[in-house]
Amino acid sequence: MTRETYSLLENYMLSCMDDSAHDKEHVYRVLYYALEIAETLKDVDYDVLIAACLLHDIGRKEQFENPALCHAAVGSEKAFLFLTEHGFDPEYAEQVRQCIKTHRYRENNQPQSPEAKILFDADKLDVTGAMGIARTLIYKGIVSEPLYSLLPDGTVSDGAGDDAPSFFQEYKYKLEHLYDRFYTEKAASLAEERRQAAVCFYQSLYREAASSYRSGQRALAGLLEDP
Amino acid sequence: MTRETYSLLENYMLSCMDDSAHDKEHVYRVLYYALEIAETLKDVDYDVLIAACLLHDIGRKEQFENPALCHAAVGSEKAFLFLTEHGFDPEYAEQVRQCIKTHRYRENNQPQSPEAKILFDADKLDVTGAMGIARTLIYKGIVSEPLYSLLPDGTVSDGAGDDAPSFFQEYKYKLEHLYDRFYTEKAASLAEERRQAAVCFYQSLYREAASSYRSGQRALAGLLEDP
Repeated sequence: MTRETYSLLENYMLSCMDDSAHDKEHVYRVLYYALEIAETLKDVDYDVLIAACLLHDIGRKEQFENPALCHAAVGSEKAFLFLTEHGFDPEYAEQVRQCIKTHRYRENNQPQSPEAKILFDADKLDVTGAMGIARTLIYKGIVSEPLYSLLPDGTVSDGAGDDAPSFFQEYKYKLEHLYDRFYTEKAASLAEERRQAAVCFYQSLYREAASSYRSGQRALAGLLEDP
Repeated sequence: MTRETYSLLENYMLSCMDDSAHDKEHVYRVLYYALEIAETLKDVDYDVLIAACLLHDIGRKEQFENPALCHAAVGSEKAFLFLTEHGFDPEYAEQVRQCIKTHRYRENNQPQSPEAKILFDADKLDVTGAMGIARTLIYKGIVSEPLYSLLPDGTVSDGAGDDAPSFFQEYKYKLEHLYDRFYTEKAASLAEERRQAAVCFYQSLYREAASSYRSGQRALAGLLEDP
């Protein structure tokens, strides 16, 4: 890929990133992870891979404004249109479209090409480790969801079995189970290296919260007088 | 304190918590930490302490809507008014007011009474450890600030020396330096127990981000062709 093409795609990506710095940072990290993964594989089409990484989240704004839309579907169409309108070979634009369309985890819509599998893995890698924790917490702030829910006895739930959304719920339902869902060995091994940081953080946060509720509620019960 | 008074104060606190579950959870944690600290001290007035903890952040909404206001100053006046209007002894209301007024870190406005020092410490404790990391990240999401800034050479800054706000900047300027600023021994020791979780998380996140930028940018430089 020429520097000129890279800048064209990068600027289009930046123009689609509506809200905040996080999305943009995420896109660069996904591109960088993808290149790291690609180095371990043969016959990767870097022109497809780089374009697919840069453009993979350009449908986010549409999904945010209308949650019925899927950002992978919207983004893949936007990318195809942008590329063909800018004179790229329709076959190339189609390959990029397929990568973007399948980057989101869906049973019936799995990545097929090497580039699509690399993008999928790179995107998932950014939900592992300390980075996955940080991004999830930032998102919880944006959508005003709490860190944890309380059990009926007033103690802190660890998230398992919770219906109400919270950071602990998302950790137990999603973040904890990512590590065996990679297509490439390199991504699986990078994720494994990062795993312990996420586990430690979750355990520390749970311990801190749960112990303060336990000791505080016990002390309070001894202090409050019935009328 | 009677259960009836506790409920009166708790309900007033809840009515002042405008935005989200985080503020409310924080208030309960501060109360619980405070009771844990108080158990190690003599002659604590629990009626003052419990009221001050429950009401310490009731001025948050006013500060959020007008950042020129200080939530400690606003909250202390609201608490005094609420208590006197509900028939509590003005001397008691004044003690609660003083605790709330001095709970925020300010050189010229330091806590004086045992209860004020306990509230100050309990509030700071909630910025230490994994909890401090989690609350800071949630806040960064609310105010749309990024995880990190980039240095002029395109690599990830560790936050030290940054002017632009980011999670790493706040870690380096604030979170890292909390641990020797407690009035009570119990709070200092609880903070120390929690410290390692925060340090580990920051280091893991920095390592993950920095290494992906380094390897990705090197790979990209080798792939992009000059025209």
